[in-house]
Amino acid sequence: MIILYELGAAGGARYSAFSWRTRMALMHKGLAFETHPVRVADKAAIAFSGQGKVPIIRDGAHVISDSWNIAEHLETAYPDAPSLFGGPSGLALSRFVNAVADRQLMPALAPACALSVARMLDAGDAVYLRAVFEKAFGRTLEEMHAGREASVKAFRRALDPLRATLRRQAFLGGAAPAYADYVMMSPLQWARIVHAEPVLEADDTIGAWFERMLDLFQGYARAEPARAVHG
Amino acid sequence: MIILYELGAAGGARYSAFSWRTRMALMHKGLAFETHPVRVADKAAIAFSGQGKVPIIRDGAHVISDSWNIAEHLETAYPDAPSLFGGPSGLALSRFVNAVADRQLMPALAPACALSVARMLDAGDAVYLRAVFEKAFGRTLEEMHAGREASVKAFRRALDPLRATLRRQAFLGGAAPAYADYVMMSPLQWARIVHAEPVLEADDTIGAWFERMLDLFQGYARAEPARAVHG
Repeated sequence: MIILYELGAAGGARYSAFSWRTRMALMHKGLAFETHPVRVADKAAIAFSGQGKVPIIRDGAHVISDSWNIAEHLETAYPDAPSLFGGPSGLALSRFVNAVADRQLMPALAPACALSVARMLDAGDAVYLRAVFEKAFGRTLEEMHAGREASVKAFRRALDPLRATLRRQAFLGGAAPAYADYVMMSPLQWARIVHAEPVLEADDTIGAWFERMLDLFQGYARAEPARAVHG
Repeated sequence: MIILYELGAAGGARYSAFSWRTRMALMHKGLAFETHPVRVADKAAIAFSGQGKVPIIRDGAHVISDSWNIAEHLETAYPDAPSLFGGPSGLALSRFVNAVADRQLMPALAPACALSVARMLDAGDAVYLRAVFEKAFGRTLEEMHAGREASVKAFRRALDPLRATLRRQAFLGGAAPAYADYVMMSPLQWARIVHAEPVLEADDTIGAWFERMLDLFQGYARAEPARAVHG
């Protein structure tokens, strides 16, 4: 049984975009796993991994951190399960998709969601997360929250290549979803859980694709409830 | 013998970013081809294709326009030649890379290069191109040229996911170049030919990769000379 260590809020929410990439990859591979919540500030709980960030999986003797490294491990360790990448070319190009998500999509969206996330956490974790976000973005969480409309618009613009691609094919991976789809859905799943307003416009092609992603594996990602604190 | 119709300046320059995608794809496939220059404003010369844009290829009975459609045709029509995509997953993800280049990279870079391109053309073509660019960007060519440093900086920022990817693998396609590499090199090749100043910083990881791209096929892309008019 694989164990997934991931961020978990006091109220039970499993909100980490990066962890959702791993969750969907595990479902895609059809692997049994259980999840262990880790508080943002609790570095002692994950010291066994030799570094300070979740998600982490423990798979028998293997301990692997970083959602991308986890995906590569799963593809190598379970070659007979459905492929996450569709071969070496797909893997190489999925790394680019992963970089787009990490370096363009998440930074555009994060300021819009940061205060909402902090509100879901207990006091100690909220203080920790506030410090991390305010250092990264050079603004207070309240300033980021006040500017959330501009952040959401920048995020929508950054999604434009995905939008154009999905006008031509059902999934980023082609006819069926692949790891690149899980990467790109992860900021949207994060926002669905923590952000009070929709981040996509109602008629966005990406919205229809995201609904298809939420439908996968008997509605696995949809089962995680929205937890946004309004106002 | 495949015939490639592409933009050609009066002085002989073959500067079209989109055509360079097709040229590199043809070289990758090892196919014999000849190129026919088409003036920007000369729609009559390409009326046979049923539309108004180059690149176009004539491959026996097939006439195909749009660099992406051409790449798909070459992959289908020449399955025994080296693959451009590495399978269905690679093709699906390459479409996303193509959309990133078309919707983020080219629009960021184009204002920096537009006046330089116009200066390479004869008077009639320059007038035509000026009208197209000034309508698209809502500024005069001279205003775009004056703001070229900001455009180049935006272009460098838009390259960030490629940069991160190339720190982990030799080519976007993985260990060897693929169509996604030709797509991403195309704005850089365009700039190399038409732009007077380097668009990459000297220590950029992308610069080393671009040099590798210029080395391919006995230095095929490098053989096209820089034509920028300085000042």
